[in-house]
Amino acid sequence: MSRALVLQSDFGLSDGAVSAMHGVAHSVEHSLSIFDLTHDIPPYNIWEASYRLWQTISYWTSDTVFVSVVDPGVGTTRRSVAVKTGSGHFIVTPDNGSLTHVQRTEDIVEAREIDESVNRLPKSGESYTFHGRDIYAYTGARLASGVISFEGVGPELAVESLISLPVKEAHIAGNTVKGMIDILDIRFGNVWTNISLEQFRKMDVRYGDALEVTIEHDGRKVYNNIMTFGRSFADTHKGEPLVYVNSLDNLGIAINQGSFAKAYNIGTGSSWGIAISKVD
Amino acid sequence: MSRALVLQSDFGLSDGAVSAMHGVAHSVEHSLSIFDLTHDIPPYNIWEASYRLWQTISYWTSDTVFVSVVDPGVGTTRRSVAVKTGSGHFIVTPDNGSLTHVQRTEDIVEAREIDESVNRLPKSGESYTFHGRDIYAYTGARLASGVISFEGVGPELAVESLISLPVKEAHIAGNTVKGMIDILDIRFGNVWTNISLEQFRKMDVRYGDALEVTIEHDGRKVYNNIMTFGRSFADTHKGEPLVYVNSLDNLGIAINQGSFAKAYNIGTGSSWGIAISKVD
Amino acid sequence: MSRALVLQSDFGLSDGAVSAMHGVAHSVEHSLSIFDLTHDIPPYNIWEASYRLWQTISYWTSDTVFVSVVDPGVGTTRRSVAVKTGSGHFIVTPDNGSLTHVQRTEDIVEAREIDESVNRLPKSGESYTFHGRDIYAYTGARLASGVISFEGVGPELAVESLISLPVKEAHIAGNTVKGMIDILDIRFGNVWTNISLEQFRKMDVRYGDALEVTIEHDGRKVYNNIMTFGRSFADTHKGEPLVYVNSLDNLGIAINQGSFAKAYNIGTGSSWGIAISKVD
Repeated sequence: MSRALVLQSDFGLSDGAVSAMHGVAHSVEHSLSIFDLTHDIPPYNIWEASYRLWQTISYWTSDTVFVSVVDPGVGTTRRSVAVKTGSGHFIVTPDNGSLTHVQRTEDIVEAREIDESVNRLPKSGESYTFHGRDIYAYTGARLASGVISFEGVGPELAVESLISLPVKEAHIAGNTVKGMIDILDIRFGNVWTNISLEQFRKMDVRYGDALEVTIEHDGRKVYNNIMTFGRSFADTHKGEPLVYVNSLDNLGIAINQGSFAKAYNIGTGSSWGIAISKVD
Repeated sequence: MSRALVLQSDFGLSDGAVSAMHGVAHSVEHSLSIFDLTHDIPPYNIWEASYRLWQTISYWTSDTVFVSVVDPGVGTTRRSVAVKTGSGHFIVTPDNGSLTHVQRTEDIVEAREIDESVNRLPKSGESYTFHGRDIYAYTGARLASGVISFEGVGPELAVESLISLPVKEAHIAGNTVKGMIDILDIRFGNVWTNISLEQFRKMDVRYGDALEVTIEHDGRKVYNNIMTFGRSFADTHKGEPLVYVNSLDNLGIAINQGSFAKAYNIGTGSSWGIAISKVD
Repeated sequence: MSRALVLQSDFGLSDGAVSAMHGVAHSVEHSLSIFDLTHDIPPYNIWEASYRLWQTISYWTSDTVFVSVVDPGVGTTRRSVAVKTGSGHFIVTPDNGSLTHVQRTEDIVEAREIDESVNRLPKSGESYTFHGRDIYAYTGARLASGVISFEGVGPELAVESLISLPVKEAHIAGNTVKGMIDILDIRFGNVWTNISLEQFRKMDVRYGDALEVTIEHDGRKVYNNIMTFGRSFADTHKGEPLVYVNSLDNLGIAINQGSFAKAYNIGTGSSWGIAISKVD
């Protein structure tokens, strides 16, 4: 019985790299169900790879194997790992921070370093630049298809030794909640924060309330305005900004039928802070 | 026995949204064959979603289930529906006009409103912005895998109550055929009309004939020129415009190895009229 | 037992064309495993289609069927063919040069012209512009699923009659190796040459050595500089150029975390020459 294999990378779909990963995985086991998370992670952006894994993982059945390859350190001594989460999902990836979000929300119950003497595509020795295909897709497919057990990945690692990127936690101070810009909803230009609806509810806010939103980059204010807390985009006029609850039950900032991110040049990561206050 | 499930949206492939839809569908039934129509529908463009469904549906076996999610009205009282066509295909979609083209060419023989108390991903209550995943992909996968019958979608609706976008019918007046710009062939910049080869043939036109082509937007002339009716692009020189028969057996306008749509800023929908006349 | 079917084209993923190919293939045999190589080949760029086939084919098991459709000559008398390689792969394509790279590295052991009276989607007669769907995807799916044998494609052709694009062979002259720019690694902006590591090694070069790199377009020098032969990108500073071994064991030119191709407007094909010399 094959598990699903879900691939993510920053390779794009314009050349043969992703298809080679599919081919290697299909060669390991023809009946394997192979899916793509996304291959449009901005080049070298580990933060976003970490975010996309976390955003998607819970919609796949436990025992699904994810392969995530954003790997600016390929060729260095960074480790190649596979981990098992408390929910029973597996992730195969370079150990460079791409597990940051998952580590914080799902327990990682076991981690193993990939033993390349076993888990590397035969005859792929010379190339140092395509571990995504030769090591990660190959190992992920072997794990998903049951060719190897999780123990067969390689020697066990201390879960605490896995690398994490810095995060600015969301917290409440008076009638203000502060957090960071976690990610952009690229297609629609919306800004997604790491402030959960649950935290926000502690401030006793209701749909329709007015809110003051301030966004800072490296401590410098880049946006400040009053907007409504909307149940949906339909609650505001076209072109108006709003605070809304996104598909992860976190707060997002949007312009109804416009791009908030483009309008104000908003970026992501721990250097982008946001504060949302109740207006009395 | 699983049917194929074919997904369409305006979500793009750059984040985890489409993968979450795949994950939800795969979770419903592991053996389900999941495909994508396109996820590059321009944001909120219901007309194009409707067109792409129509363009593609007949190349899939009857009993295939399509899920189409372009949903600017999410959060309003717009209905969520599933329909069955005379050809035996199923479409799951918000009822906002995305069935416009299919309604006109295939009979819709039965329509049902999705009962969200049954057909909604468990534990997805708080989010109002991701019906694509929680309702449409989930319901489509349940229907395609036989977890529910079509009756299990929800209560029956009058087919006549389904929402349609306005269309300007193609018709012949003297030695001129008039219609509208239905869609752009984006990759190659060609313009596709709603004038069928069958209609055009009534004007007794042959390959090689000279034609006068006029394009209007909201009644204002934006293009007027003489060109050839070509059997294929190879019948014209590089850079020359031509009228040709597209893959839907409708008339298209192209520049051989150039972009007609970009060159003259052509758009789509009922506000874009086109007239093609025989030159004697 | 179905083989895998792998599709490539210059259609893009923004409309219904690729999905119609998937639908036609799925209709031929529901259990067929359908994959995409890429559909982002630049419009009409046969060279790149040829390259992507070659780049990917060895990562798929023998007996995989590839369909490649970049077809500027559709509607002319160019032939439609299917070939079998010495490695046991099949490729279905217009005979216009898309087999150039595969012909040079894998033997093509047998070629057949597609008999359209048998291998064309029923009721697809009028359209001259969509052979990708009606002939190539349809024939490829029939071959992959065993509906037809390779003999069932159509009459045998002389392998020598297949069309090839011109190539500038890599060769050593003194302490310089000369070749051409084969392809761009689009996502990362790297330039890939047709000079193999094996050839390069004959010049007795080692990692860390300094090299003089010259790039010419149509005989005019467009780039000239000294750079290091790096085992990996990590061996250079951010922003520094390097010569490296790519995932095909050929030489590539890159700027660490930058785009060499964009920085110097580099293109591909036999008009783009490159020379790499040892610096003593």
